[in-house]
Amino acid sequence: MSKKSRKTDKGLETPKEIASRIHVMAEGIVGQIKKGQNPHFVTKQRGKGNVEFEEDKGIIELGDKETTRSFLNIAHTKKFLQTMLVTSQLYNYLSHDKTASIREIYYELKHTVGNTSENTFEDQSESDSCIVDLEHAVETIREKLNVHANPKGTLYGDITLVDKVHNNDKFNCLKLGRGGWSVMSRMEPNEIEIKDCDAKYALVIETSAMYERLIEEDFAKKHKAILVGTGGQAARGTRRLIFRLSHEQKLPIYTFTDGDPYGWYIYSVIKQGSMALAAHSNYMAVPDAKYIGMTIEDVKDYGLENVTEKMKPGDIKRAKEMMDYDWFKNKPWQDELKTAIDKKIRIEQQALANKSLEFVATEYLPKKIKNKEFLP
Amino acid sequence: MSKKSRKTDKGLETPKEIASRIHVMAEGIVGQIKKGQNPHFVTKQRGKGNVEFEEDKGIIELGDKETTRSFLNIAHTKKFLQTMLVTSQLYNYLSHDKTASIREIYYELKHTVGNTSENTFEDQSESDSCIVDLEHAVETIREKLNVHANPKGTLYGDITLVDKVHNNDKFNCLKLGRGGWSVMSRMEPNEIEIKDCDAKYALVIETSAMYERLIEEDFAKKHKAILVGTGGQAARGTRRLIFRLSHEQKLPIYTFTDGDPYGWYIYSVIKQGSMALAAHSNYMAVPDAKYIGMTIEDVKDYGLENVTEKMKPGDIKRAKEMMDYDWFKNKPWQDELKTAIDKKIRIEQQALANKSLEFVATEYLPKKIKNKEFLP
Repeated sequence: MSKKSRKTDKGLETPKEIASRIHVMAEGIVGQIKKGQNPHFVTKQRGKGNVEFEEDKGIIELGDKETTRSFLNIAHTKKFLQTMLVTSQLYNYLSHDKTASIREIYYELKHTVGNTSENTFEDQSESDSCIVDLEHAVETIREKLNVHANPKGTLYGDITLVDKVHNNDKFNCLKLGRGGWSVMSRMEPNEIEIKDCDAKYALVIETSAMYERLIEEDFAKKHKAILVGTGGQAARGTRRLIFRLSHEQKLPIYTFTDGDPYGWYIYSVIKQGSMALAAHSNYMAVPDAKYIGMTIEDVKDYGLENVTEKMKPGDIKRAKEMMDYDWFKNKPWQDELKTAIDKKIRIEQQALANKSLEFVATEYLPKKIKNKEFLP
Repeated sequence: MSKKSRKTDKGLETPKEIASRIHVMAEGIVGQIKKGQNPHFVTKQRGKGNVEFEEDKGIIELGDKETTRSFLNIAHTKKFLQTMLVTSQLYNYLSHDKTASIREIYYELKHTVGNTSENTFEDQSESDSCIVDLEHAVETIREKLNVHANPKGTLYGDITLVDKVHNNDKFNCLKLGRGGWSVMSRMEPNEIEIKDCDAKYALVIETSAMYERLIEEDFAKKHKAILVGTGGQAARGTRRLIFRLSHEQKLPIYTFTDGDPYGWYIYSVIKQGSMALAAHSNYMAVPDAKYIGMTIEDVKDYGLENVTEKMKPGDIKRAKEMMDYDWFKNKPWQDELKTAIDKKIRIEQQALANKSLEFVATEYLPKKIKNKEFLP
């Protein structure tokens, strides 16, 4: 598979394909050793210096700068050993259909080396960084290496999922009471299939309280909406789910957060991706996502002056930083950020309760969706 | 209903009963006004000075000390007004089968009073404290006043729930793929019915990673266990669920946390209740719960010396405090805490992965349960 095609296959690779990429990489290293060469492997440079905003695609990506780690470099030797341990273990997981959390991998591989007093790993950050190295080296995401961090997020609405590696469990997320389905840390298509989805759009919601409010108001059913609760910043599994709702189901994605820099950044990560995970935007970013609210404009439009909160100095600083991000450099967002900074206010989703508990479901959201009142 | 019987009815009151208690209280206040008396209401004193450990019941309770707030006391006037606003609103919720988050209530009731510049509430802490006052005044929990904080927690296993206020949705939590059901913030019997439950015990698990591990190992099915993931300290809804698994379903409750003061305290709150919510132990505490692990003893028994973590000074201080709590004053816990303090180590659930990923499911838990190796 060419580098280019990998970059655009949107994460539909099978575990077998990923395992074979690892195998190719490992064979290369074994070949180096057999030829008496200095074994080494190549991964991507991380950090701001290698992050780009791809304007045409509308996502944040990792650039092409590479970095090489070689065994016969005293500064790299331990790191090289660690990466080989992690790589071999992840290959094992893929071969045996096992998955593990990044914390389990750390503990699983931690041991004292031979007759030395040296441990393979002293800290989880060391094994975590090997996982990232491997993600970049074979151009995939950790979910496809069968590892994951903690899950977070809930799903509600007329969407039927099948867990293909768990008795082919089939369930409709509109019929699980008001709790909804607990989104897994890994939402890969080879494991979780979206069987049916009868919806006009997906609404991504920052706060659990608003998610529960909309369920109580029967919003999903009345408006044929899929509700995704992120509970703050969206976890990777939740981002993969949103990505799949957009790409596989072709659903419009409307994002609904608090009207403050934290909420706007949640939206921005869902839409463009993040700098920290720039390498994975092709698997996770949803450039077509739209922002539905809350906005500072709403305060005037809906008479919410009484229920705004003051921005803290940190919020104002953050809003100013965000004005400088390429992906916020469009008039609507510059206006929004500037108004927030000038007025020094923020507005929460729950503030709509000041009109009435039902207002968000009967007026606010339907009107915005009908009139396409979105921020880009 | 007498005070005594209320104290032991374990939270099976209907919304109608709770509404009628509020009505009685409100009628009393109206009566005071009509008689030209100073209107006032009585609630419980909060804080350490009114918290007791009831040794015979094995739970932490709020004592009988009361406090009176009266309208014609300049220091109480605003608080009195606020409490009346909140009380009236909660009565409305109960009458109209609405529920709300505590943040929504704050926003819903916030407004400027008449022609003054005075707001009803300046901060959510003010409305929150009114809710607590009312909980104590009518001796119930906020869930039964139809309000709630954020949900957290997941449920997995052969248990069938019916959401009686949501189309009578009926679903079995073993058939929702590996995600499980997202526990609601309110798990009251009048709304969520436990229809069937085919299990030998419930295992309450601190970390999401361990919860996922046990699902991957098919532990629930193989051992007829209900798995409850708390994701850290158990939220109120999750505590109510555990309570009901113990009281309604008569399941033994085994708690499985990290082996450190934070994990042990999670157990202690599930078992005895907490000082902060001492008034609600009768609705939430499960004095029959047992502690299955992790213990510092495990480190030696299973050769985990290599994968312990150092306790931070704060952990050691916390462990010392816990040795002084009445409910940890039994030999097994004193020994456990003392060993941790002496060795200055902690051990995480994931550390068991050092044996193998499966070890926890195939050896550790089954052996402990078979041999009844629990801490009390």
